[in-house]
Amino acid sequence: MSNYDFKAVIHDTFAKQAFLNFIGAKITALEYGLCEMEIPYRDELTQQNKFFHAGIVGTIADNAAGMAGFSTMEEGSSVLSVEYKVNLLAPAKGEVLIARARVIKAGKTLTICNADVFAKTGADEKLCATATVTLMALKNYTK
Amino acid sequence: MSNYDFKAVIHDTFAKQAFLNFIGAKITALEYGLCEMEIPYRDELTQQNKFFHAGIVGTIADNAAGMAGFSTMEEGSSVLSVEYKVNLLAPAKGEVLIARARVIKAGKTLTICNADVFAKTGADEKLCATATVTLMALKNYTK
Amino acid sequence: MSNYDFKAVIHDTFAKQAFLNFIGAKITALEYGLCEMEIPYRDELTQQNKFFHAGIVGTIADNAAGMAGFSTMEEGSSVLSVEYKVNLLAPAKGEVLIARARVIKAGKTLTICNADVFAKTGADEKLCATATVTLMALKNYTK
Amino acid sequence: MSNYDFKAVIHDTFAKQAFLNFIGAKITALEYGLCEMEIPYRDELTQQNKFFHAGIVGTIADNAAGMAGFSTMEEGSSVLSVEYKVNLLAPAKGEVLIARARVIKAGKTLTICNADVFAKTGADEKLCATATVTLMALKNYTK
Repeated sequence: MSNYDFKAVIHDTFAKQAFLNFIGAKITALEYGLCEMEIPYRDELTQQNKFFHAGIVGTIADNAAGMAGFSTMEEGSSVLSVEYKVNLLAPAKGEVLIARARVIKAGKTLTICNADVFAKTGADEKLCATATVTLMALKNYTK
Repeated sequence: MSNYDFKAVIHDTFAKQAFLNFIGAKITALEYGLCEMEIPYRDELTQQNKFFHAGIVGTIADNAAGMAGFSTMEEGSSVLSVEYKVNLLAPAKGEVLIARARVIKAGKTLTICNADVFAKTGADEKLCATATVTLMALKNYTK
Repeated sequence: MSNYDFKAVIHDTFAKQAFLNFIGAKITALEYGLCEMEIPYRDELTQQNKFFHAGIVGTIADNAAGMAGFSTMEEGSSVLSVEYKVNLLAPAKGEVLIARARVIKAGKTLTICNADVFAKTGADEKLCATATVTLMALKNYTK
Repeated sequence: MSNYDFKAVIHDTFAKQAFLNFIGAKITALEYGLCEMEIPYRDELTQQNKFFHAGIVGTIADNAAGMAGFSTMEEGSSVLSVEYKVNLLAPAKGEVLIARARVIKAGKTLTICNADVFAKTGADEKLCATATVTLMALKNYTK
């Protein structure tokens, strides 16, 4: 468990990422080792069938995982995605895209997360992607 | 070698993807089994350090690979990314982001591509990511 | 749910793979969409610290996933691993290596599975790897 | 370029891995950032069609990459595979399996490698897999 206010730091880091704002992403839940992120549908985010573009799917998976992993790192750390792998399981067709990420292994240097991505229409959620993300904690990186 | 005008089909498919237009992606080279794609720098595409966001890096890698693979598929096919894996090797800091993708194995059902992503400033290019992308050809999908 | 005796086919396929026998792998549980596999410790299977070698960890993950996925495929199919990705989370130190695999998405052509690998000593199990495996069903492949 | 005798250290590390000896792997070429490894055919290493088993393919890819990466690390380091991802491109049918690995990015903490795996029969080599491997250098690990 963390002994500092990781939520404030994560929301601050999130707010500084112009691209996440550009695509309308928001953090909808955040706990130690867990993060949920959403992106509402907009035409600008789609591929040729008006589904969410795979680039958006990968982005939300990687970033939800990044925030989940960040929450378990030491105060003063910065988080970096080392690699991510996304399996696209079904068309991302819906009104909102939701990523739910959790830490699988929190390590001193590397943290591994899983993120599942769902396309939601009304109350119906459909799993459309699953991702594994490897994160690295960078120390003394704040200045 | 292809016996139909795959370039016209690829440029058409590309043009229909709103998200690729939204982020300013363009195809800068296209041959049988090869595709180069570029995205010029804009503040909206960045993370907290004003580098290209990892979501943009993954998007350009996946899409350049998709177009490279698409060029080797039979006429009338549609292309789908099954999975992609991106290793982020260095900060994507530059004036333009360039992905160069090539087919490693063209198959009847599945096609595997590699894409390298470079951040370019002036004449200097720096490798910032490498990706492997698995594509599936969907048949009779045009109507 | 399957309407044929997939268990008999899977045990038969398993038995024909000399390498799995060579390393002492055995299926310890098998249900529709689920497979558990074990490999008891032997010195021949280790790396320099006498832990299970990463090659063994990858092998058990891929094969448990393959059998889990195979159980959901149509009768007469053959299963092929298209790609697998393993994150090595902790040293595979134990008396027995256990992989537990489950289908995440069963498709007509492609099936995606997750496999977690545990190193067990006495009653203690430690998660040492997690893998994602993409499988392809090959039809009319029995002869 | 390295200023210590990395080849001696790598051959020593290799020799201590019982599993690599068990499957008959040998290093056939080793330079700074490059490693070639071979495994001759034996029935014990096969799957149901008498091709090299995917577990062997993954093992040789991961280990050739590990040795390639190790060659670029500081003296006194130990190397650990963090994750590896293998795309199986064609049946690994041949008299000998060959992996050729090279460093893509050598970093202080993480090193990323590519390994291509070929099945060779007579003078004919066929690409049967390509892998990406993320390695971590562990410092002061020798004692």
